[in-house]
Amino acid sequence: MGYDPAPYAERLGRLRAGFPDAETLLILNEKNIRYLTGFTGGDGALMVGPEWLELLVDGRYTTQARGEALGAEVVEFRNRAEGIAGAARRHAAGRIGFEAPALSVEEHLRLREGLPGVALEPLLGGFQSLRAAKDQREISLIREAARIAGEALAAVREMIRPGVREKEIALELEYRMRRGGAERASFETIVAAGSNSALPHATPGCRAIADGDCVMVDYGAVVQGYHSDETCTYIVGRASARQETVYRLVREAHDRAIEAVRPGVSCGEIDRIARGYLEEAGMDRYFAHGTGHGVGLDVHEPPRLAAGREEILRAGMVVTVEPGIYLPNEWGIRIEDTVLVTDEGAERLTSSSKDLTVI
Amino acid sequence: MGYDPAPYAERLGRLRAGFPDAETLLILNEKNIRYLTGFTGGDGALMVGPEWLELLVDGRYTTQARGEALGAEVVEFRNRAEGIAGAARRHAAGRIGFEAPALSVEEHLRLREGLPGVALEPLLGGFQSLRAAKDQREISLIREAARIAGEALAAVREMIRPGVREKEIALELEYRMRRGGAERASFETIVAAGSNSALPHATPGCRAIADGDCVMVDYGAVVQGYHSDETCTYIVGRASARQETVYRLVREAHDRAIEAVRPGVSCGEIDRIARGYLEEAGMDRYFAHGTGHGVGLDVHEPPRLAAGREEILRAGMVVTVEPGIYLPNEWGIRIEDTVLVTDEGAERLTSSSKDLTVI
Repeated sequence: MGYDPAPYAERLGRLRAGFPDAETLLILNEKNIRYLTGFTGGDGALMVGPEWLELLVDGRYTTQARGEALGAEVVEFRNRAEGIAGAARRHAAGRIGFEAPALSVEEHLRLREGLPGVALEPLLGGFQSLRAAKDQREISLIREAARIAGEALAAVREMIRPGVREKEIALELEYRMRRGGAERASFETIVAAGSNSALPHATPGCRAIADGDCVMVDYGAVVQGYHSDETCTYIVGRASARQETVYRLVREAHDRAIEAVRPGVSCGEIDRIARGYLEEAGMDRYFAHGTGHGVGLDVHEPPRLAAGREEILRAGMVVTVEPGIYLPNEWGIRIEDTVLVTDEGAERLTSSSKDLTVI
Repeated sequence: MGYDPAPYAERLGRLRAGFPDAETLLILNEKNIRYLTGFTGGDGALMVGPEWLELLVDGRYTTQARGEALGAEVVEFRNRAEGIAGAARRHAAGRIGFEAPALSVEEHLRLREGLPGVALEPLLGGFQSLRAAKDQREISLIREAARIAGEALAAVREMIRPGVREKEIALELEYRMRRGGAERASFETIVAAGSNSALPHATPGCRAIADGDCVMVDYGAVVQGYHSDETCTYIVGRASARQETVYRLVREAHDRAIEAVRPGVSCGEIDRIARGYLEEAGMDRYFAHGTGHGVGLDVHEPPRLAAGREEILRAGMVVTVEPGIYLPNEWGIRIEDTVLVTDEGAERLTSSSKDLTVI
């Protein structure tokens, strides 16, 4: 696919508009640099002046940066702080607003030494929110990642049976996602059986699946930098009455929350709907995390769908909806889809069945 | 394996001795926290007082931290900067020396707000060097990682033939390392064929191997957090006279450098030996990176074996030796082993043959 300058120009326009008081901006987060230029390498710095754009990279990335970031002037450095200072001097920058979450105190000290007389102004947060609403290309990449992931899960689902270890399933799933075209897994795949499913973030281990287990599979694929994120929880052998009840509660909370997703609704309201439903059932104390998060170049990015969050959903945002109930030392059930906020409501991008499945 | 407090006590002793002027130390790098406590999770903070040790973690990690970091008091936080401020107040800390490369300007601002009257002193570097000399357990884990990696490469080597794509080989190699017991690959495996082998850090792509190609495989495995790192370069079909000549030069530079590794020699001297040999052959300008680096909880860590580096090798250090020659737009050859500095010299921990291999 050729380089299309339009999305990058639009994104830079929004960046500059978001920081109208800044003369020069310094972007250091690698995903933000990718979003603004197309450069997929690491350890760079992007300087955004009123009329100029310089991408600073070390020698490992010069050729790659020149091939990817066609809208920026690419300048090579040996030391990043020196490279930034050099660009500031070339453009006679007097004030630089920098991404405060992405600059270490150590590098900040070096920058201050290298730029006497230049005001370095920390800008707190705000940069990742630029990426919250996705364009058509971004949406199609997340959709493709979700499709690859879903097909891989369908292929390994038959492995979920008594005696098979969690980590064997996780490994096969990641392998199949990559064979299917994913560049990698979105994160370390979670396959958590039995009491491990009661931990929201279990690491797959040597535990073998047993009859009656809940098996939670939280997984995703990456395509051209864009992530998918989905959780299916299966029950092995035969579901107990309690497992069925809890599954139905989580499923209903999940469905109601997705039903409520549409432009104009706050993120906190989506969380309140899922949590409120579990509260009515007296189970909300077993739902110890937020209802969801944005998904894109990072698997966790703004907005957060959590209690009290006032951000308003907009068309093009891609978010997870993932309520769960975790019964300590027993088992847990989480049901998660990645959904696109459309003009009318929500469209699921992940497509594995969320019906109660006993295997 | 049970928790053995002795290594952690010894490491904390060295940390405190390394910063004798600091009253309280704040460690934020996740590998350094693991080294000092055994905690394998993320997003934590370790505070080291003269007579106390607190590991601060968020709710996802509390149970895990209490099970792993038996030598530290584990305290849960909702917000890391608030957690650090709370610990400082509990212990009436007046001055805190913090890991400047591991704290962002944003979090530093929040800490300053939360700790009025406390002196926050940036400490530059130095922390990772604590980990440079390995103990017996660490060495055996790196040895195990290298063994698993080497067996996986031996199993996939037959895939290296005309028509097979770089990324297929990389995927199979990573898959086999994990099946063999690795928790993951040390880094994104490099399989670079033909002109891609002329790029020191190529990403495996869709290029199919062709007759006469150099195929560079740079790979490693992780076992209990410890990495291995090795590069083999094969030639497919038949080696040209030039490929044979360049291979022999790189091999000799590699062998001479390893021959020189022993306690008391400077890191720069090892680089000088490899580089000097290639210089005699008029090829040093095609060797554009350092000769090696430390390997442990990070795949790249101190010391660096590069021009002018004055650090002195000590028994127990584990370093790579990896000279290479990269002929732009043609092909490249790199030969890399991970070696242990012993009392007498160097012991290879990676064990794949480095003889010229035409396959």
